[in-house]
Amino acid sequence: MSADEFDVIRTLFAPLASEPGARGLLDDAALLEGGPFVITTDAIVEGVHFLATDPIETVAMKALRVNVSDLIGKGARPHAALLTLIWPQHRPAEEIATFAASLGGELAHFGMRLLGGDTTSTPGPLTISITAFGAPLGPRTPSRADAKPGEDLWLIGGEIGSAWLGLQLRSGAMTLGELRRGRDEAAALIESRAIASQMPDYLKLPNEDFDAEAAWLMSTYLAPFVRLECAPIIARFAGASMDISDGLAADAQKLAAASKVALRIEANDIPFSIPAQRWFETGGDFRKLVTGGDDYVVLFTAPPEARAALLASEKGVALRLTRIGAVEAGEGVSLVDRSGAPIPIPDPGYSHRLGR
Amino acid sequence: MSADEFDVIRTLFAPLASEPGARGLLDDAALLEGGPFVITTDAIVEGVHFLATDPIETVAMKALRVNVSDLIGKGARPHAALLTLIWPQHRPAEEIATFAASLGGELAHFGMRLLGGDTTSTPGPLTISITAFGAPLGPRTPSRADAKPGEDLWLIGGEIGSAWLGLQLRSGAMTLGELRRGRDEAAALIESRAIASQMPDYLKLPNEDFDAEAAWLMSTYLAPFVRLECAPIIARFAGASMDISDGLAADAQKLAAASKVALRIEANDIPFSIPAQRWFETGGDFRKLVTGGDDYVVLFTAPPEARAALLASEKGVALRLTRIGAVEAGEGVSLVDRSGAPIPIPDPGYSHRLGR
Repeated sequence: MSADEFDVIRTLFAPLASEPGARGLLDDAALLEGGPFVITTDAIVEGVHFLATDPIETVAMKALRVNVSDLIGKGARPHAALLTLIWPQHRPAEEIATFAASLGGELAHFGMRLLGGDTTSTPGPLTISITAFGAPLGPRTPSRADAKPGEDLWLIGGEIGSAWLGLQLRSGAMTLGELRRGRDEAAALIESRAIASQMPDYLKLPNEDFDAEAAWLMSTYLAPFVRLECAPIIARFAGASMDISDGLAADAQKLAAASKVALRIEANDIPFSIPAQRWFETGGDFRKLVTGGDDYVVLFTAPPEARAALLASEKGVALRLTRIGAVEAGEGVSLVDRSGAPIPIPDPGYSHRLGR
Repeated sequence: MSADEFDVIRTLFAPLASEPGARGLLDDAALLEGGPFVITTDAIVEGVHFLATDPIETVAMKALRVNVSDLIGKGARPHAALLTLIWPQHRPAEEIATFAASLGGELAHFGMRLLGGDTTSTPGPLTISITAFGAPLGPRTPSRADAKPGEDLWLIGGEIGSAWLGLQLRSGAMTLGELRRGRDEAAALIESRAIASQMPDYLKLPNEDFDAEAAWLMSTYLAPFVRLECAPIIARFAGASMDISDGLAADAQKLAAASKVALRIEANDIPFSIPAQRWFETGGDFRKLVTGGDDYVVLFTAPPEARAALLASEKGVALRLTRIGAVEAGEGVSLVDRSGAPIPIPDPGYSHRLGR
C-alpha cells in the first residue's frame, strides 16, 4: 500500500523535529539560528553505497552516520540534519516507518534534531541525501589542507579494514572458511548453530550460517561505528583532519595533495581489527584493507609535542587512537614496512567516475 | 568519456564557490557563519519533476529556482547553496560542464554562492538535491500557519497556469492548433517559419514547429521564473506565506489546513496569462490551470489595511501582485465565480504517493 507524502511527514518524521525552527516540518522552510555551523552533505544510493538487500534500518543508520563522521572529522558536535528521502515507486511504503524509527533512534543517539527535508518518489534506486549541521568545538575547524612537515599522522575512532571484510562476507565474495582460517573452526560452528536462530537475517552470511565475528564485520559495513568522543580531541589537537570514507590510502592521498605535503604511513602501525590481522597473516592481502573503503575513522595530523597530551585525552574512552606515520616535505603517500622499505599501493579497484 | 568526480569538483564547481567558508569545495565540510538563516531543501528527479528530454541547462535552472522560490516565499534573500548531484552512470559526462555553467549563471543571477555539496553516480535517473540558505529580510519569517480570518489573500510573482500549458505542449499532450484557437493562425505560421531555425530545440514543439508563445509557455515549465523583488514585500506585509509548487488549489489547501482557516478564491481574479485566458475562453477547462503545478509564485495573506501600501510597493516592478480572495473562519478552499457560486475543484490527477 503506497503512502501519502504529507501523511508520512506528519506521522513519521515530524515527531523527530523537536527544534522550534523546524516548525514541525509542516512549512516550506526552516529557521536555523545560532551558529557558526560546520555543514556537510552526503548522499547514499542503493547499488552504489549500499546493497539493495541491505535492511532499511541500517540504510537509515548509514545515511546519517556518514554525515556525522564528516562533522567529527572537523571537530564539531552534531546539531541538526535535513533529510531528503527519494523513495522508489516500487519499494513497499511500509518500510518508510521502519526507516523513520531507525533514523529517529540515530538522531537521538547523536543528540541531533531533524530540521526539515524533502520526500519524493523516484523510478530509480532508493537515494538518501542528508545535510548535517555541527557546532565547532574549537576556535578553528581543521581542513584537509592544514598538514605541515614534521607533524605526526594519527588515526582515531576505530579500525581499518573491518568494513571491507564485512562487505566481502555480506556480498558472498569471501567465504566463512576464509575468514576462519587460523581460528578454531569446531568451536565456531557450535556457537553458530546455537545463536543463529535469534539473529536478524542481515547478520547472517549468504549461506544462512551465523558467525559472531562475521556479523560484527558485516555490521561495520552496514552501519559504520562513529564515535562522538573523537570530536573534542580533533578540535583541540588536529592540524589537518578528515574522515576516511574511501579507504585509508586514497583519503591520505587527498590530505597530502590538499596540504602539499608527503605522508609516510608505517604499515605495521595501522590499527587493524583482530580478524583483519588474522586474515592477512594467513594469506590475505593486507593492502586490500588499506585501499578498501567504508572505514569512517578520522585521519589527522598533530605536532610531536602534543603526543603525551593526545594519548592522555583518550584515556578510558578506547578510541583506538594510533600514531601511524608522519608528515614530510614532498608529495604523495608512501606505505613502508618495519625496515622502511616502500610497499606498493595497488589501485583500489573502484572509482569515482561520473557518467559515460 | 566519463569524468573523475574530483576533477569535476575542482574544475567545474569550485569556481562557483567564492565564499571563504566553502574552502574551494576541497574539504569534507564547509563553514556557515552569520545567520540566522532560512533553510530549505528540494530535490528534483528525472521522470518525476522534469522530463528525460529536458535540456541539462534548464534542469540546472529548475533545481536551483524551486529552492529560491521557497526562500522568496518566506521573505528571505538567497545567500548560498549546497548541491548534491546524483549523475546517471549512462549519461554523458560532458553534460556536467553544461550543467555547472548553467548553475553558475543562476547562482550569480540570484546573488548566491556555492558552499559545498556531494557528487555521486547512480544506476537510476538524474537526481539533484539542493539545500538553500537565505537571509530573512524581516523580523519574522512567515509560515503557512499564520493566516487569520479577515485577511486578504494575494498572489505575487507571476501567473497561474502557464507552466501547466507549457508541459502539455512540450509533452505533446496539447497541439499547437489547440493553443492557437482564437489567434490569427496564418500570421503565427509565418512567424514560426521565419525564426524556427534559430531557436534551441527545447523551445520547439514535438512536431518541430516553433511558436513564440508556445516557447514562452514551455520556458515557464522548464525553468520557472522567480522574482527576488517579491521577497522584501513578503517580509514586510505577509501574515501567512508559501510558494505555489503543486498547483494553486492544492497549495491553498495546505495553507488553510496549517492555519486552521478557510480560503475563498475568486476565480475571476486569478492572474492567468494571455494565452491561458484565451485557451479556456475557447473551450479549455480553466480548472486545470488552477490544479496544475509548477507555477512557483507566492501565495500570501495580509490585513485589508495593508492594501494601499502593498500595491504601492509593487509600483514599477510588475510582479503581478493580485488580490485573489479572502481568509475566513472555517476550513478548506472554495473557488467562487463572479456571482459567489462555488466552482467544484477537480482532483489534480497527480499524486504525492510514496512506494507501493
